[in-house]
Amino acid sequence: MNKNETQQKQGIFISIEGPDGAGKTTVLERLLPRLEELYPAGLVTTREPGGVAIAEKIREVILDVNHTAMDSKTELLLYIAARRQHLVERVLPNLQAGKMVLVDRFIDSSVAYQGAGRGLSIDHIKWLNSYATDGLEPDLTLLLDIESEEGLRRIEANKDREVNRLDLEKIDMHQRVRQGYLELAEENPDRIKIVDASQDLEAVVEDAFNLIKAVLEEKES
Amino acid sequence: MNKNETQQKQGIFISIEGPDGAGKTTVLERLLPRLEELYPAGLVTTREPGGVAIAEKIREVILDVNHTAMDSKTELLLYIAARRQHLVERVLPNLQAGKMVLVDRFIDSSVAYQGAGRGLSIDHIKWLNSYATDGLEPDLTLLLDIESEEGLRRIEANKDREVNRLDLEKIDMHQRVRQGYLELAEENPDRIKIVDASQDLEAVVEDAFNLIKAVLEEKES
Repeated sequence: MNKNETQQKQGIFISIEGPDGAGKTTVLERLLPRLEELYPAGLVTTREPGGVAIAEKIREVILDVNHTAMDSKTELLLYIAARRQHLVERVLPNLQAGKMVLVDRFIDSSVAYQGAGRGLSIDHIKWLNSYATDGLEPDLTLLLDIESEEGLRRIEANKDREVNRLDLEKIDMHQRVRQGYLELAEENPDRIKIVDASQDLEAVVEDAFNLIKAVLEEKES
Repeated sequence: MNKNETQQKQGIFISIEGPDGAGKTTVLERLLPRLEELYPAGLVTTREPGGVAIAEKIREVILDVNHTAMDSKTELLLYIAARRQHLVERVLPNLQAGKMVLVDRFIDSSVAYQGAGRGLSIDHIKWLNSYATDGLEPDLTLLLDIESEEGLRRIEANKDREVNRLDLEKIDMHQRVRQGYLELAEENPDRIKIVDASQDLEAVVEDAFNLIKAVLEEKES
């Protein structure tokens, strides 16, 4: 089997990352109609933690505002468990069917939030990510980067969004998360591409679209 | 600080292990009045998965009969997450207060059930156990050993007990679990002591009591 055959069977796996308030959800919504045209084999958009029934139940445990006694390692292990289930039930079958799978948050969120953010060992988090995914990484990760002050300002302005336990964290947590993401991007220049999320929405969507298009063209060449 | 001072401050940590039907719960109930006399600093009995609110929520996700799509690694990671939370919130504070903590299932259950039983890598499970516990092991583990046929027969005879998803497993799973436990006991002869659970209840309780008493005497000497 040549390289092209293998990769065509695997579909395309894209993760969208970034601190809260960077606009991941909105950008994803705007991208969809353009991606449907670009990739006729079909698109699946999903999110972590959640995306399948068991992982949604785990999400409820993680985000429950009453769970203030939750230890950082417990939280990390729950994200990793949800990742595993979502990967097995939703990501892998769709990749095997040749679809483009776009996931809102994946392995890098754990490194940025629980590692850089909460101070857990990044080496241990990478081990856990690899355990849960059997080493699978996205073909492309779009990192929507934004100044922490601006990201937090946008969260507060967005009144439709429910406030959860994690919103109660402070500005310096958000700054550490952003820094963690930027370090990951530096370590993985081929996989992780930074998009300047402080631009106008149209410009952000345009940049994201062009990065996805470039990965598709590379795969097809 | 000499060794005795350190150990006295840590309390005594005992886990009770064994396949379903070995009688862990009943033996623990019968042991309690005798242990209260033996150890006046106080006893705490608890169980895994569960024992504190967050871990009980995780337990619900694990044991939900609708969750037939649960992947083996997801299940393991949920047990490990529940272990972490229970350790931090319940086991450690009580050990630090000098109590005797008796826990129904701990690290060895993951090796026996998810490793020997379901075929996940035992080395990976040991890594995860160590991550969740920061390397803490019980002072003594009582392994209630019983032939798998007899264990299953007892489960079916016990009509008060709710049937959960895990009871639907087959006899060969139970045999692999038992074998996994026996191998752990061979690897850890100082920590894990085998109790013949096929004896009369009084004899099982007597053996378990004497093993606990011996560990206490050793700690105090």
